[in-house]
Amino acid sequence: MARIAGVSQSAVSRVFKPGASASAAMRRRVMDAATRVGYRPNAIARGLITRRSNMVGVVISKLVNLNYPEVLVEITQRLSGRGIRVLLFALETEGDTAAALDQVVQYRVDGVITAAMLTGEQLGMLDEAQIPVVFYNRAPDVPAVNAVRCDHAAGERWLVGELVDSGHRRFSIISGPEDSPVSTERTLGAVEELKRLGVSDVTVARGDYGYGSGREGFSTIVGELGAPPDAVIAANDTMAIGCIDEARAMFGLEVPGDMSVVGFDGVGPSAYAAYQLTTVSQPVAQMSEAAVSMLTERIENPELPKEQRVFSGIPIRGNSARLANNP
Amino acid sequence: MARIAGVSQSAVSRVFKPGASASAAMRRRVMDAATRVGYRPNAIARGLITRRSNMVGVVISKLVNLNYPEVLVEITQRLSGRGIRVLLFALETEGDTAAALDQVVQYRVDGVITAAMLTGEQLGMLDEAQIPVVFYNRAPDVPAVNAVRCDHAAGERWLVGELVDSGHRRFSIISGPEDSPVSTERTLGAVEELKRLGVSDVTVARGDYGYGSGREGFSTIVGELGAPPDAVIAANDTMAIGCIDEARAMFGLEVPGDMSVVGFDGVGPSAYAAYQLTTVSQPVAQMSEAAVSMLTERIENPELPKEQRVFSGIPIRGNSARLANNP
Repeated sequence: MARIAGVSQSAVSRVFKPGASASAAMRRRVMDAATRVGYRPNAIARGLITRRSNMVGVVISKLVNLNYPEVLVEITQRLSGRGIRVLLFALETEGDTAAALDQVVQYRVDGVITAAMLTGEQLGMLDEAQIPVVFYNRAPDVPAVNAVRCDHAAGERWLVGELVDSGHRRFSIISGPEDSPVSTERTLGAVEELKRLGVSDVTVARGDYGYGSGREGFSTIVGELGAPPDAVIAANDTMAIGCIDEARAMFGLEVPGDMSVVGFDGVGPSAYAAYQLTTVSQPVAQMSEAAVSMLTERIENPELPKEQRVFSGIPIRGNSARLANNP
Repeated sequence: MARIAGVSQSAVSRVFKPGASASAAMRRRVMDAATRVGYRPNAIARGLITRRSNMVGVVISKLVNLNYPEVLVEITQRLSGRGIRVLLFALETEGDTAAALDQVVQYRVDGVITAAMLTGEQLGMLDEAQIPVVFYNRAPDVPAVNAVRCDHAAGERWLVGELVDSGHRRFSIISGPEDSPVSTERTLGAVEELKRLGVSDVTVARGDYGYGSGREGFSTIVGELGAPPDAVIAANDTMAIGCIDEARAMFGLEVPGDMSVVGFDGVGPSAYAAYQLTTVSQPVAQMSEAAVSMLTERIENPELPKEQRVFSGIPIRGNSARLANNP
């Protein structure tokens, strides 16, 4: 076929090898020749020979949290740049991993990046099948796993410290779904730092990471307290936005004039002029790159030790909280 | 292995066959037995025999448009419910399909759902490889393709009709990226309906579907006109939100008091209390189900004729436009 296309054999290989570079002109010449002779390399058959499928399973739960689409695109494009394809598993809830995991193993993916928690048993199954796993923003409580995460607790400590420093005393929290380890880490991080600073009476309403649950959460809080708190700490930006809208629209409150509201994630809408959230932004590009390189290194070299990389969130002062140290 | 698990052979098959039903207890019993005997069905090897990979390629371009994550999750979960996995291709721009398409063919996917435009040549390649394709929200200008789309032009006609009826005369448009057929259909739909209703002098600023470009687009428009128009038609909700924020924050305008702004899509933030967009919502659940069933029917039966399904958008009256007929 190289002869038909009038190019070298190595050029043909470059066109068909995932991740290898080939100019657009070269690609077209080779593909035209391939069409003429009916040649079609079969990535799956090749996978049976090399014992590589060149596919990575990515497991995410339902994207109520606006942060995940961005993560998914970052990870997919970075894997794609390395010639690796993404087999996507979108779960309804984070607890729903059993069926997805069976499939991951059956499809012989080379590795897994999961933004949903796995059980020790599921991890054992992947380990036995020699499929390396990288956890994204969570890590099960077992001795050694690969994980990339944002330091959610430290982010909450920053938010709480700033709020207490600025005179806030009565705090409420809108948490995320019960089965979200990220929500647990954020909520516990805030509660513990508040306790350390002498604030122990904190009202907590449970949300589901969605906008509506931020609105409802704030109503519930005011119902319980009989008055708005000084500050609301929401476990993500979307619920913080819902809380602000409810406070303004239904209670006539000014944010941050009458009450401070803070979020977490740094999603697009957090920067909308109507909200300008005081929040902690996750460094998604760096975290995605870390997850992809951590996984591909372990696909190449299964003997590498387990590793955890923890990234600090980026404090965003915004304009939804009355902070004493604001410029 | 059925003997070891103490269940029937057909129960074992049900556990391993994608999409077949098996109780959680049954699944665990069979998987435990499978682990003990080291049995692991190989979906890829099976694919070589059945000539099915049970994978569908889904092609999307960068998710600047907040509508796509929702579409992706809907499609993935619906395919998953049918025992089919999603091989994800996330393109940087819609024009960037060449390399992705080579991979789609190499991985022998059973079919493709694409929210990015393909060339006639690319379609021919898929056709030759007998891989059915369903276009999502776009259709190339060739005689016969499978496509599911929202009637963007009709949606714009509704918006324009309501605005003109309510006395708006000076119109501006913030369009989407040049390589987006959806933006072209929306923008042309609005321009033509305006012309039909006697409004031919329309300022158009080009955006990229992102929030910032909505803000910049509005500044550009005011710069060109020397004053704000009566109404801005944005090619998606995210730019409409940017436009509203710019009008309020930088020009001290009230929306809808001083100016009307309308969007398209019905994404989550369009319903935030600060915006409450007047927009047209895409029926994502119905469109996703239609795309998935259109594709799976053609995987089962390649002889089926090509088909196009067009869904009407859902008019949302919202509160970002002064409409005479508002309740």
